[in-house]
Amino acid sequence: MFTKKYFEEFEVGQTRSTLGRTITETDIVMHAGQTGDFFPHHMDAEWCKTQAFKQRIAHGTLIFSVAVGMTASVINEVAMTYGYERLRFIRPVFIGDTIRVQITISDKQPHKKPAFGLVTEKVEVLNQNDELVMVCEHLLLTEKSADE
Amino acid sequence: MFTKKYFEEFEVGQTRSTLGRTITETDIVMHAGQTGDFFPHHMDAEWCKTQAFKQRIAHGTLIFSVAVGMTASVINEVAMTYGYERLRFIRPVFIGDTIRVQITISDKQPHKKPAFGLVTEKVEVLNQNDELVMVCEHLLLTEKSADE
Repeated sequence: MFTKKYFEEFEVGQTRSTLGRTITETDIVMHAGQTGDFFPHHMDAEWCKTQAFKQRIAHGTLIFSVAVGMTASVINEVAMTYGYERLRFIRPVFIGDTIRVQITISDKQPHKKPAFGLVTEKVEVLNQNDELVMVCEHLLLTEKSADE
Repeated sequence: MFTKKYFEEFEVGQTRSTLGRTITETDIVMHAGQTGDFFPHHMDAEWCKTQAFKQRIAHGTLIFSVAVGMTASVINEVAMTYGYERLRFIRPVFIGDTIRVQITISDKQPHKKPAFGLVTEKVEVLNQNDELVMVCEHLLLTEKSADE
């Protein structure tokens, strides 16, 4: 679905959240195959038993990619991704964990191009125990309304 | 391969670079399937013809994941990813483009835990024309040598 949400329509404190998604062994295997990251943290169940976390953990890039994908529902035609800040992997995600994403508009700033503003979305990924597993800030370069 | 590279052994200015990798239509299709991001920017060749970039572009999360995966060669047992900063998608990556990654140690800082330091790697992803397509900073929490 396409929509147009201009800079003026974003309000600090607005929130939205996604459905849940269970991270499976298949996700880890597919992500290793796509990225070439076959580190034993993700691929070697026996080696993982010798480590503090005891079992295979999802790639950080998998959780980031799935979390961003989970938020990709409505296409805002007047905004584009400028970048991401402060990406942190707080807790491991294990096979069978179910994640969901909470988005909160956390900041609005002017941009050097006067027709645009920069919207910051705080992205929080939680597991089935409501523990924070990943966090980042998504910066959106957003058009101002022509009416203003 | 496992190795141990302690905080003291990192020097600002040290560089390394990866092999190249061609980003294919298959990569985009697989990444859409894994993440659920089927935005037309990546999936609809006909809609893309109506846009400024004229053709399908790779997901930003695909380029980030592949770039990180391309650098996942040697496992440093005394360092772990702390997070990523200033992730920016500078130019689109099209089907058939070939990317490679250049890593430069750009900063070293003390950490509140005295046994660790924070190493910053500048990550630059270049295409076949040596144009920068993505950049970020990778923060590594790195043990100090017990000898010191």
